[in-house]
Amino acid sequence: MRKHKYAVGVDFGTESGRAVLVDVGNGKELATAVYKYSHGVIDKVLPVEGKPVRLEPDWALQDPEDYLRVFKRTVPAVVRAAGVDPADVIGLGIDFTACTMLPVLADGTPLCVLAQFRRNPHAWVKLWKHHAAQPEADRINATARRMGEGWLERYGGKISSEWFFSKTLQILDEAPEVYAAADRLLEAADWVIWQLTGVETRNSCTAGYKAMWSKREGFPGEKYFAALDLRLRRVVDEKMTRKISPIGDCAGELTAEAARWTGLRPGTSVAVANVDAHVSVPAATVTETGRMVAIMGTSTCHMVLGAKERLVPGICGYVEDGIIPGLFGFEAGQSGVGDIFAWFVDNGVPGEYYAAARKAKLDIHQLLESEAAKLKPGESGLLALDWWNGNRSVLVDVDLTGLLLGATLATKPPEVYRALIEATAYGTRKIIESFEQNGVAVNELVTCGGLPEKNRLLMQIYADVTGVELKVTASKQTPALGSAMFGAVAAGVSRGGYASIFDAAKTMTSLKKETFKPIPANQKVYDRLYSEYVTLHDYFGRGTNDVMKRLKTLKKEAFAR
Amino acid sequence: MRKHKYAVGVDFGTESGRAVLVDVGNGKELATAVYKYSHGVIDKVLPVEGKPVRLEPDWALQDPEDYLRVFKRTVPAVVRAAGVDPADVIGLGIDFTACTMLPVLADGTPLCVLAQFRRNPHAWVKLWKHHAAQPEADRINATARRMGEGWLERYGGKISSEWFFSKTLQILDEAPEVYAAADRLLEAADWVIWQLTGVETRNSCTAGYKAMWSKREGFPGEKYFAALDLRLRRVVDEKMTRKISPIGDCAGELTAEAARWTGLRPGTSVAVANVDAHVSVPAATVTETGRMVAIMGTSTCHMVLGAKERLVPGICGYVEDGIIPGLFGFEAGQSGVGDIFAWFVDNGVPGEYYAAARKAKLDIHQLLESEAAKLKPGESGLLALDWWNGNRSVLVDVDLTGLLLGATLATKPPEVYRALIEATAYGTRKIIESFEQNGVAVNELVTCGGLPEKNRLLMQIYADVTGVELKVTASKQTPALGSAMFGAVAAGVSRGGYASIFDAAKTMTSLKKETFKPIPANQKVYDRLYSEYVTLHDYFGRGTNDVMKRLKTLKKEAFAR
Repeated sequence: MRKHKYAVGVDFGTESGRAVLVDVGNGKELATAVYKYSHGVIDKVLPVEGKPVRLEPDWALQDPEDYLRVFKRTVPAVVRAAGVDPADVIGLGIDFTACTMLPVLADGTPLCVLAQFRRNPHAWVKLWKHHAAQPEADRINATARRMGEGWLERYGGKISSEWFFSKTLQILDEAPEVYAAADRLLEAADWVIWQLTGVETRNSCTAGYKAMWSKREGFPGEKYFAALDLRLRRVVDEKMTRKISPIGDCAGELTAEAARWTGLRPGTSVAVANVDAHVSVPAATVTETGRMVAIMGTSTCHMVLGAKERLVPGICGYVEDGIIPGLFGFEAGQSGVGDIFAWFVDNGVPGEYYAAARKAKLDIHQLLESEAAKLKPGESGLLALDWWNGNRSVLVDVDLTGLLLGATLATKPPEVYRALIEATAYGTRKIIESFEQNGVAVNELVTCGGLPEKNRLLMQIYADVTGVELKVTASKQTPALGSAMFGAVAAGVSRGGYASIFDAAKTMTSLKKETFKPIPANQKVYDRLYSEYVTLHDYFGRGTNDVMKRLKTLKKEAFAR
Repeated sequence: MRKHKYAVGVDFGTESGRAVLVDVGNGKELATAVYKYSHGVIDKVLPVEGKPVRLEPDWALQDPEDYLRVFKRTVPAVVRAAGVDPADVIGLGIDFTACTMLPVLADGTPLCVLAQFRRNPHAWVKLWKHHAAQPEADRINATARRMGEGWLERYGGKISSEWFFSKTLQILDEAPEVYAAADRLLEAADWVIWQLTGVETRNSCTAGYKAMWSKREGFPGEKYFAALDLRLRRVVDEKMTRKISPIGDCAGELTAEAARWTGLRPGTSVAVANVDAHVSVPAATVTETGRMVAIMGTSTCHMVLGAKERLVPGICGYVEDGIIPGLFGFEAGQSGVGDIFAWFVDNGVPGEYYAAARKAKLDIHQLLESEAAKLKPGESGLLALDWWNGNRSVLVDVDLTGLLLGATLATKPPEVYRALIEATAYGTRKIIESFEQNGVAVNELVTCGGLPEKNRLLMQIYADVTGVELKVTASKQTPALGSAMFGAVAAGVSRGGYASIFDAAKTMTSLKKETFKPIPANQKVYDRLYSEYVTLHDYFGRGTNDVMKRLKTLKKEAFAR
C-alpha cells in the first residue's frame, strides 16, 4: 500500500488565515485551523504606542506580522490534529487577498516594523479594500487613455483604485520618503512566500490581474510610468522584477526558520503564491475551458478559462497563465451579492419574521428562503437591479445604485428577498452572455463559497435564469484546498505529489452529486423578466438616464453643506 | 346678548359615522360622538340568517340600517354632551363616502330589507370601494369613446369602476331582477337625507363627480345608455331624476320620526347631502379660487375651485356647483399616501426601530420622522415613485407600481421613509402643475385629514417640494364641521343660520396660526430631485417603458398557473 502523503494549504483572508491539511492521494481534508489576525483590518488608528495615528476615510491596512502568526498558529495545529508525520507533508501552498501590498527592505523587512517608519501609515500593508487611491487610479487611467496604452483593454478599459500601481502611486504622492526607502514593493502573497523560502518570487496571477503585466508584453513601458511621475519611471526594475513565476511552479523550499514556525521539515516544497479566488478554480475541478467557476459570497467572482485571447468588454481582466498554466484566465465579478441579502435582513425585515424564524429554529435567511420558495417566478411582480454596491461587470461603475420596481401595498418581505436573489442571477446571466458573445464559452457553472451551501432556492433560481446547469464543489474551503493542491504540484511526482495542477485536480477534487438543472417552465418566465432587467440595466447603466449618478452627486453636496 | 344657535354635522365614513355639534356663531365644536357600523364593510359573507351567502373578491357592501343607527346613536349623544337645548339646533347636514349607492322601492325601502331580496348581494348598498364592476366601467368607457361622448373629457378621459353607472350596470348585468324591482337607484348620501326629511333629493356633488351629470348638459343621452344596454335607456327618468339640488340648498325639514331618532325638533332644517372630501373644502376656509385643499390621509384628495370651465388632463373630474355654488370644483387625487407609509412600517422596518420607539415613548411613525428629519434634502441619495397603490392623478392608471431607486448597502430605513414622503410630495407637485398649466391657479395649500396633524417633517417637505405655503385647518374633523356649516346654511338667516356657505365659512372656520413656508435652500435641491422624478414618471408612466404593466401581467399569469 502506497504511503499517504499530505499537503498544507494556507488561505489568507480579510480577517483571518486558515490552514487545511489535505491527503494528496484523495483530496480529503483532514484538519483545519483558523487564526484571527490580532490587528484585523486597520482602518481607524495604527496599532502603535504613543499618540494615536488616525487614518483617513477609505483607508484599510494590515500588520504583516499577523501573516507570520498565521503560519505559527495554524500549521502546527493541523499537523497535530491530523496526527500525521511532518515528514509526510510534501508541500505547502498559499493564497491571499489581492491586491494587498507592502513596501519592504532588500532583505524583506517590512518598513512598518522599523522605528523610523512605524508611525507612517504608508509603511504598512495596504489591504485589497484600501480605497484611498482613487485619484491615483484616475490618473493612471487618464494617462493610459491619452497615450493609447494597449494594456488598458485587457482590463475592460479601466483599472481599479484597489490595484498595485494605484497604491504604489499613492505612496509616492503622499509619502515619497517611504517610496524612496522601499527597496522592494510587492504583494503580501509573494512576501509570505519569501518569508517561507528565503527567495523572492512574483506570481503571474497578481502580476497579471493587479499589476498590468502580461506574459507576452510584460509591464507597461518606462515612458508610460514617467508620464505618471518621473520618479516612477524605473519602478519595475528598481523595486519589482521582470521575472514572473507562473502559477504551478515551485517557489522554493522551507527554510530552517520557517520549518520551526510551521512544524514542517526544512526543505518542504513551497508553491508560487496565488490569489484566493483564482486558486479556487482547480479546487472546483476546473482546469479546462467552458466551465465557469462562481465563488459566491458577499460578492461573486466569476472565472472561466479560454484557449485564446479575447477582449470581453466590462470584465475585470484576463491573464495568460493567470489561473491555470497554458490557458487564459478570464475574471468578472458582481460587487454585491450576499452583501445585498445581508443588507436586506438587517434593514428591511420586520421583527415578526425574526420571531417566526426563532420559533421554527431557522436563521432569518432560511426563513425568508422557505417563504420565497413558495412563490412562482413572476408572482411577486417585482424586479430589481442588483447594484446596491455598484456594478463591477459588465458596466464597471461604482456609482450605480440599487433599484426595486413593482412594489404594491400587498408586497411582502419574502417577495423582496426573492426579487433580490433574482436580480443577482440576472447580473450573472449578463456576465455569462458577455463572455459568450465575445467568444468565451460558458457551458456550466461550478459554484463554491458560502451561498451555494446555504440557499437551495438561490441555486435553482440561478439555474432557471442562466439556463446552465449549476454544480457545487464538494469542498467547503476551496481556496485552502487549491493552495494545498499547488503545494502538491510544487513537490512534484518524485516527492509523492503531482506533475501538474491538471493531475492534482483529477485526484484531489470532486463535486457534489446533486446539481441544479434549469426547469424549462421557469426559464420561459425568467427569459421575459431578464429582458426587462436588460432594458433597465441599459437605461440606467449605459447613459440614457444617469439619475443614479446625479443622486450620488446630490448626496455628496448634502454632506458638504 | 344674541342667543347661541347650533348645527349638527354627520360624517358617514367607511367604518363608522360621526356626529359633531357646532356653535353656529363661532364654529366651536362642542361635542362629538362616533358609531361604528354594526356590520362595517361587508366583503366576505352577507349578514343574514341561514346558509351563508359568500361574496366574490373585490365586493364591498354595507347595511343601510347601519346608517340610521348612526343618527339614533350619535345625534342625541352630542346634544346631551354639549348640554344644549334641541330647540337651538337649527340645522343638520351630512356627508358621505361616494359613490356609495343602493336600490330602493318608491317609498325609500331598501331592497335588501325585503325578504325576497335579502339574500341577494346586489340588493345591498354598494360601498365606494366595491371594485367588482370593472368590466362594466370598461364597457362604459369604450362605448363613450366609440360614440364620441363629450362628457368623458370632464373626467380626464376615463370613468372609474367605483362610480354610479358602473355599479348600476353591474346590477343590471348580474341581477336583472334586482334592477327591475328597484324603483329608485340612488346615492346613500341622498337616501339618508330622504329618511330624515321624507323628501327625495339628489345632490349636485355626487351627481356631478360620480354620475356623469353636469349643470349645463345634464346626464348622458338615452342613445348612449341604450348603447350600453337597451334596458338602461331610460334609467335616469325611470329610476333617478333630472332635478339635481345644488350643494348649499335646503333639502327639507326633519320629520317627526327622524326627530325621534335624533332628539332634535321636527322641522329642523336639513341640508342637501354632500361628499366627505368635498364638504371639507369650505370647512377648510376655502370658498374662493386659487387655494387648493388637500385632505391627506391613507390617500390624498386635492380640490380647488375655479371660476371657469377648464379641461385638465388626468384629474378625477370637475363639477359646476360641485363644491361651492357658482364655482367649478376641480378634483384630483393620489391613491396611496398614508397607506404607503403604513405599508413601509408594517413590511420594511426592523424590530430595533420599534424598540427604539417604545423606549422613546413615540409611535413608529414619530420615531422614523425624527430620524428622517435629521437628513438634508438629497442626502439619502434615494428617489421613489409613489405608485404603491397605482396612480390616480395625473396618469389615471391603477396598474402602475412603486419604485425605489438609489439604494446602497448603507441605506437605512429612515432614509427610505423620507424618500417615500418626498415621492408623495412630488406627486402632489405634479398635480398642482397640471392644474396651473391648464389655467387653474394654485397659490396655497390648505391641508386637513390625519397626516398634517401627525407629521411636521412631511408638511415642511411638501412646502419645500411644491414651493407653496402650507396651512392647516384648525378643525380636526373638517367633514363633520363642513356638514354642520351646510346645516346652518340650510336653516338660513331667519332661523339664526347663514344665507350662504360663504358667510358660514367666514365665521365658522379658521386655520392654525402656524404655517409651513418653503425654505429656499431646500427648494433648490428639491427642484433638481423633482426633475428626476418627472423623468421617471414619464418614462414608466407614459408608455416609454411599460415594464410595470408587463410585471403585473406576469403576476396574473403566475396566479393562474
